[in-house]
Amino acid sequence: MLKALEWLDEERALRLLDQRALPGAELYVLCRQVEEVAQAIENMTVRGAPAIGIAAAYGTVLAAREGPEAVADALKRLARTRPTAVNLFQALALMKHSLGAARQLSPLELEERLLGEARRFHEEDLKNNHRLGEFGAALLPDRATVLTHCNAGAIATGGHGTALGVLRSAREAGKQVRVYADETRPLLQGARLTAWELARDGFDVTLIADSMAAALMKSGEVDAVIVGADRIVRNGDTANKIGTYMLAVLAEAHQIPFYVAAPWSTVDTSLPDGSHIPIEERSEEELRVLFEGRVPDEVKIWNPAFDVTPAHLISAIITERGVFRGPGYDLKEFEARPFVTAS
Amino acid sequence: MLKALEWLDEERALRLLDQRALPGAELYVLCRQVEEVAQAIENMTVRGAPAIGIAAAYGTVLAAREGPEAVADALKRLARTRPTAVNLFQALALMKHSLGAARQLSPLELEERLLGEARRFHEEDLKNNHRLGEFGAALLPDRATVLTHCNAGAIATGGHGTALGVLRSAREAGKQVRVYADETRPLLQGARLTAWELARDGFDVTLIADSMAAALMKSGEVDAVIVGADRIVRNGDTANKIGTYMLAVLAEAHQIPFYVAAPWSTVDTSLPDGSHIPIEERSEEELRVLFEGRVPDEVKIWNPAFDVTPAHLISAIITERGVFRGPGYDLKEFEARPFVTAS
Repeated sequence: MLKALEWLDEERALRLLDQRALPGAELYVLCRQVEEVAQAIENMTVRGAPAIGIAAAYGTVLAAREGPEAVADALKRLARTRPTAVNLFQALALMKHSLGAARQLSPLELEERLLGEARRFHEEDLKNNHRLGEFGAALLPDRATVLTHCNAGAIATGGHGTALGVLRSAREAGKQVRVYADETRPLLQGARLTAWELARDGFDVTLIADSMAAALMKSGEVDAVIVGADRIVRNGDTANKIGTYMLAVLAEAHQIPFYVAAPWSTVDTSLPDGSHIPIEERSEEELRVLFEGRVPDEVKIWNPAFDVTPAHLISAIITERGVFRGPGYDLKEFEARPFVTAS
Repeated sequence: MLKALEWLDEERALRLLDQRALPGAELYVLCRQVEEVAQAIENMTVRGAPAIGIAAAYGTVLAAREGPEAVADALKRLARTRPTAVNLFQALALMKHSLGAARQLSPLELEERLLGEARRFHEEDLKNNHRLGEFGAALLPDRATVLTHCNAGAIATGGHGTALGVLRSAREAGKQVRVYADETRPLLQGARLTAWELARDGFDVTLIADSMAAALMKSGEVDAVIVGADRIVRNGDTANKIGTYMLAVLAEAHQIPFYVAAPWSTVDTSLPDGSHIPIEERSEEELRVLFEGRVPDEVKIWNPAFDVTPAHLISAIITERGVFRGPGYDLKEFEARPFVTAS
């Protein structure tokens, strides 16, 4: 399995798969400075809510040898990278907590402490992916054709994947899984990453343009839609890659179950509903640059990177703590309990 | 106003704006042979249902000097270019009728006869665009924000445009019009053609990715969706660029009026409903080629060029014969009458 991120002990560095270069080339970026990690998150060398959180956790480790103040600055710098995915902020809160309990340590001891914390966070994510994958797999029929959006795969997480982790777990459980992947404009994570990741893993995968999802659903081909998430708030409203809300509306219109798969680190119970989630707007250039030529400057561009799907359009939220069928629940109620299966 | 197609008398040739090169360059292709016109339709040098019909009409003229048999062959060749837009077949039926009535003429006389017919068809389309534009403009509020898909503009027709013709007519009637244009993957007609055509004409136009339409509608920004059509059948079901059906479902979910604007030459009363419309599938390459690299060959691709929107999702069909509010009508009833306004 390809690793989106790996801590290299001998190098004391974070190695990132450069996801901008896929599928053309498998390139890696070695980060030895916090700033390099911050920029890698901003420019989407590493992307996917859980992977961003893990990268940020390792990022703080890179500042430890300069002492606690440098780590505190690192936490602030990393918090300014991307606003929507909450896993980043959960990871930074965890590292901040570790830092607070370790201020009297030497730089090398601090580094070891933070590295241990980051490793646990990383390993936990991988374990959670497998667990939520099993929960999700149980929801699929024995022969399932699933539509997915963007990339919620092994390379968006600590490994295995969330939405794609469900598909992997379903296959491991002996189910037959066919996948349709939306190409996911403007950055084409579906075409560049998901289609490639699934084909590499031997899945039967078909690529479509985002605008084809409705016609595909109408054809009766799709048994379920499964997507990842960047932030799930208290009432179940979910921010995810732009176009997710579109799929949820279309799935409801075609009476197809719509599932969100995400680790609990994506849940933010501090916000009551989706209207409070900050939505990142990215550069106009992502839409202005054409294969040949550019869209004229007189044309304005709107380029939100995410949208919010209201809980009432989500058939179930699949986490490692269980499967939440809404709407009408309060995720805060489940925060403290280790493993709950709500239905 | 830029002309997508123009008959050059001195050259005895059809000049086509090469829409594949836009917005980077304004190139023209001169067609002196039927085969050149047929290939220009196939490779989308000229596109847009009404423009395809007009190009085909002129195309038959190019065969006239070789006599009636050559014209009959031209009709067959042109009929094999693209299957979905019915304007092509309406135009060819018209030219065939002219040919039938002119078999005893000399080649030069035949050419004049067919040219006269093609010119009338072209001029009629332009006139009809203006007339349906006025009908459509009356449906918009005085300050209207409209979402459109693909390019149903002046360059998709004999001039003025269908969906964009409605916007032009609304502006001429003193209304304030803002436009959102979907980029329209895979060939980006929205980004390359519509955004460019409208900006060039001084409209306030904003480009979005196709997958952003749902989030845009939810924001409350959109007063109406207006699209063109490639074929409208007897019960009002409408084939148009892939993604149109998606917009219709989304518009209904957000209680936004969804309008189809098209000349009567797009109406095919020989088919009872949309399930009978042949849908062109285009080359996988349109989705496989990325900015850098390619989607791996193991990944399958589904690339339908059109989808069908059922009549019940269409608030009104705007034609030069009037505005048809469905569903439940039979367009065949209106075929013979010159100008009807159904409501």
